Amino acid sequence: MPSFEELRREVWEANLGIFRAGLVTMHSGNASGIDRKRGLVLIKPSGMDYEKLRPSDLVATDLDGRKVKGRWKPSVDLPHHLHIYKHRNDIGGIVHTHSNFATSLALRDRSVPAYLTAIADEFGEEIPCAPYVVYLGDHIGAAVLKYMGNSPAVLLAHHGAFAFGATPRDALKAAVMLEDVAKTVHLALQLGQPKPLPPEEVRKWYERYHTTYGQKKNA
Amino acid sequence: MPSFEELRREVWEANLGIFRAGLVTMHSGNASGIDRKRGLVLIKPSGMDYEKLRPSDLVATDLDGRKVKGRWKPSVDLPHHLHIYKHRNDIGGIVHTHSNFATSLALRDRSVPAYLTAIADEFGEEIPCAPYVVYLGDHIGAAVLKYMGNSPAVLLAHHGAFAFGATPRDALKAAVMLEDVAKTVHLALQLGQPKPLPPEEVRKWYERYHTTYGQKKNA
Amino acid sequence: MPSFEELRREVWEANLGIFRAGLVTMHSGNASGIDRKRGLVLIKPSGMDYEKLRPSDLVATDLDGRKVKGRWKPSVDLPHHLHIYKHRNDIGGIVHTHSNFATSLALRDRSVPAYLTAIADEFGEEIPCAPYVVYLGDHIGAAVLKYMGNSPAVLLAHHGAFAFGATPRDALKAAVMLEDVAKTVHLALQLGQPKPLPPEEVRKWYERYHTTYGQKKNA
Amino acid sequence: MPSFEELRREVWEANLGIFRAGLVTMHSGNASGIDRKRGLVLIKPSGMDYEKLRPSDLVATDLDGRKVKGRWKPSVDLPHHLHIYKHRNDIGGIVHTHSNFATSLALRDRSVPAYLTAIADEFGEEIPCAPYVVYLGDHIGAAVLKYMGNSPAVLLAHHGAFAFGATPRDALKAAVMLEDVAKTVHLALQLGQPKPLPPEEVRKWYERYHTTYGQKKNA
Repeated sequence: MPSFEELRREVWEANLGIFRAGLVTMHSGNASGIDRKRGLVLIKPSGMDYEKLRPSDLVATDLDGRKVKGRWKPSVDLPHHLHIYKHRNDIGGIVHTHSNFATSLALRDRSVPAYLTAIADEFGEEIPCAPYVVYLGDHIGAAVLKYMGNSPAVLLAHHGAFAFGATPRDALKAAVMLEDVAKTVHLALQLGQPKPLPPEEVRKWYERYHTTYGQKKNA
Repeated sequence: MPSFEELRREVWEANLGIFRAGLVTMHSGNASGIDRKRGLVLIKPSGMDYEKLRPSDLVATDLDGRKVKGRWKPSVDLPHHLHIYKHRNDIGGIVHTHSNFATSLALRDRSVPAYLTAIADEFGEEIPCAPYVVYLGDHIGAAVLKYMGNSPAVLLAHHGAFAFGATPRDALKAAVMLEDVAKTVHLALQLGQPKPLPPEEVRKWYERYHTTYGQKKNA
Repeated sequence: MPSFEELRREVWEANLGIFRAGLVTMHSGNASGIDRKRGLVLIKPSGMDYEKLRPSDLVATDLDGRKVKGRWKPSVDLPHHLHIYKHRNDIGGIVHTHSNFATSLALRDRSVPAYLTAIADEFGEEIPCAPYVVYLGDHIGAAVLKYMGNSPAVLLAHHGAFAFGATPRDALKAAVMLEDVAKTVHLALQLGQPKPLPPEEVRKWYERYHTTYGQKKNA
Repeated sequence: MPSFEELRREVWEANLGIFRAGLVTMHSGNASGIDRKRGLVLIKPSGMDYEKLRPSDLVATDLDGRKVKGRWKPSVDLPHHLHIYKHRNDIGGIVHTHSNFATSLALRDRSVPAYLTAIADEFGEEIPCAPYVVYLGDHIGAAVLKYMGNSPAVLLAHHGAFAFGATPRDALKAAVMLEDVAKTVHLALQLGQPKPLPPEEVRKWYERYHTTYGQKKNA
């Protein structure tokens, strides 16, 4: 469990990460993280350039969106982040982008099958696409929750994508891998219709990736 | 209201900005800004590399294009900038590029519908495309004025794009977002024909973006 | 013949190389090298960011995959690397990636003809594509061996690519050139069906490239 | 007229320029320049990484390809450069690349019409494409000469492109602009068949660009 200041640094790094990976331009997109013990969410300020963002610029709010700390207004997407945090205790970090390849697939308004072992690895099933909803009320948060299943990312038709994970860093990773596989899938779709991997094959890759991959698990 | 030297710095940053965002190569494209009080326009010199451009290299002219300050010749596109500044008092910065995705859409010679919430946010309607005109006289400036409507950017068929805003920085942002949404739209068009958002939905996103988004408004 | 520490540096540079060339994101992919005299393989640790990787983080194992040196777990792809090293004494370096253009071609599940002189130069024949296999046992290693022929790279359907060479640096070069020609071929396929070069022309380019090109040979 | 050491620096910068602009990978491609007074050509060594290239690594030869200065072997493409220099006294710099978009258009084996004002500006006519020839004898040099017309660049079917200019820097510019317009044209061709600009319009843009554009001419 990181301290609040460690979380601040991790949320800041996730915001920088989506910018450096080319998932956002100017000041579109945002990343947040939650301190469950204190009930505080840290999120990017609205309309601020990534290049100028410092850790101290992040805005801290409670789960009802009341500002607790910070001189700036929070991202206008804060309500969607809060809605997801309130309904999914396992989620500790959220990223929202309009990354080009993911958003172009989202414009097709259907989920992306597991064509690639990398989709099986990270997403474990087809990547879901929620139908278009407007930003008002809990529309976006509810659509994400309804469609996410076990996938760490959801496409939003006509809009973009949300990615999540146990930590802001995991959410960043899901967002980067989403755009990476979306690019490969997009390229392949231009050359013909690929066939998805069979479900039992998807399961094998997913299980390996979530049991023996990396340094932390089973270490 | 920035001082003339502050404006010079902002115009220089807008020129660097289009280069760093990959909207221009070598020395194509240009950014300008206007000091309405002094009646002076600052613009990139003709045919100069972005990498070597210093703030002092910018050329200052009056609204009739007479050089007031600077050792270089101004961009050959200066007359188009001047024409727009003369007819639109609300515009304080202009950017011209041949950015690849926007220009490829411009080659289709028709406007780009609001397929994406990001188009609704920034452009508020479909992005207009002016038909081909040559550079002579006021042809380009007049075509931009005729087609711009409320959009902060206009495509020019067979040519490129102009973007504008209250400041050079706003014009830079419109140019970057134009290329970003043009890329996503281009990708989506390769996979089928997306449907535009209904006008009433476009209005909702546009209104939020222009009232509650960012730090300056309603602060 | 480099010393073990020189090999460590070269394997580290090959891992950095695939990251800097954009062939991998986050911590996908991996590069390895073998010290035939000592019977030791050096490979990237599992799930570690390229940006944080130091030479000392590489894991050394014997040819049966038993860890000899290093604090981390080796890449989960180690068995595939070992299988190739055991069966091909001429191979001293291996790279595995999911690079976008190569992987999108791999999704078509067929080899890539020598459309370009650059394919003739580096690959000497069409670039083979192995059909989909799961990661279990020696499936991937065996598929690579079965399909590689004389090509320094093999596509893996639904998955990605393996590239190899006499050294880790040669493997890096094959991986970079694979993605480069895959991009050009992909672009061309969007505009129509190109014709492959005739085999006798392919042979001419390959022979020049492997006899008179570069500084080391015939020096 | 630059000194030989100034030319060396300019040739070195042109080689770095094609690498930084992403027109080449690893050690594909090359740039050269000629000192007409001394009858000496400076060119990149064969198979050397751009990142490691220093000005002193360039190889100087006479117009018959005999090495006059330098410790390395010259590029295997030297004979094509020499053939062009011998037959076109107005050319002082040459660049050869396999840049992706230009090469993908070259695979179609036909010239690229002036769809864009930027093509009219720089190329003044459609960009010619020479049919496939092998590297032997004077085949490539002769094909370039036969097809170049007044264009500062020629596509080579199944191969890549040559670009030229009065100086190595002009050749670099032609190579960068070739890839830039090739990208926009490629994108547009994916969305339908664009119409070329009428010849009289092409002429207007070309004339402006070659008379009033930039700082050196008519200064």
